[in-house]
Amino acid sequence: MEPMAGIQALPAFPVVLVTVQDNVMTAAAFHFFSFNPPSVMVGIRPQAHTFKLILKSREFGINLPQKEQIDVVRVCGSVSARDEDKFQKTGLTPMKGTVINSVLVADCPVNLECRVVHEVQFEGSHRWFVGEVVAAHIAEDYSKDTMLMYWAREYRRVGDVLLSVKRR
Amino acid sequence: MEPMAGIQALPAFPVVLVTVQDNVMTAAAFHFFSFNPPSVMVGIRPQAHTFKLILKSREFGINLPQKEQIDVVRVCGSVSARDEDKFQKTGLTPMKGTVINSVLVADCPVNLECRVVHEVQFEGSHRWFVGEVVAAHIAEDYSKDTMLMYWAREYRRVGDVLLSVKRR
Repeated sequence: MEPMAGIQALPAFPVVLVTVQDNVMTAAAFHFFSFNPPSVMVGIRPQAHTFKLILKSREFGINLPQKEQIDVVRVCGSVSARDEDKFQKTGLTPMKGTVINSVLVADCPVNLECRVVHEVQFEGSHRWFVGEVVAAHIAEDYSKDTMLMYWAREYRRVGDVLLSVKRR
Repeated sequence: MEPMAGIQALPAFPVVLVTVQDNVMTAAAFHFFSFNPPSVMVGIRPQAHTFKLILKSREFGINLPQKEQIDVVRVCGSVSARDEDKFQKTGLTPMKGTVINSVLVADCPVNLECRVVHEVQFEGSHRWFVGEVVAAHIAEDYSKDTMLMYWAREYRRVGDVLLSVKRR
């Protein structure tokens, strides 16, 4: 089997809305990076408008969408901020960050404010930025059960809990 | 909200069995890295036995478990290969790689053989290795719908498909 088929075979990852300055972009290339300091990473194609903005601003917001927000997530993944104001186009509500200067998406139940601490310089289709989480906002009624996942042209809801492991 | 709470609030990620030499370890810190070259990355705690083995071998296997394999995934995530042979303990079947010298897990429907091309040197709880996928094995009857996810002490199955996006 071709190596690329193996990558397409990965099940699903959380899809996120990345905000920087006044812009918003959809990314499925997102993971935690380290628990200490608490940090996450996001992979952006160098040709994306967002890439230049993060390079310049050294910060970004991570906003986790729910499955009901699939349509706006698709718009934010297909339109370039060079051409259109995506907040205006989608009706999403920008919200000021408390620590970073970039906006966050008020309509998402989880928002992470991140300061770029590292840039992974290796060549590839995506360039990864590591951001320390400097503030987190979580809706009081937040449930993971409604969150949106994506990979290889499939949007999925997050799956049901099979087992909760007790803290040792 | 504390930054760490924001990281715990992430919904779920694919959980994988990482193999290196004759050993197997569970990792939830796993993502694709780049489509070109096709590569993935895995985050390992430096104190893990697997970390030293990858440093030395410069290769690893990624094996995707199904939800029915939750028990063996838990064992491979809690026992150190320093103390016990995890293949023996779990009954998992080691299988020779076709390109790498490390074993793969025959019981998993997807196996990626990876050669380490980069090591992310930034400090943190986890150190990330980028591996180029040099071979992929996918079971003929593979379905993503049965795959296992994990994050923040919760095992989940992968969620249902909400939308398949047509190739443009």
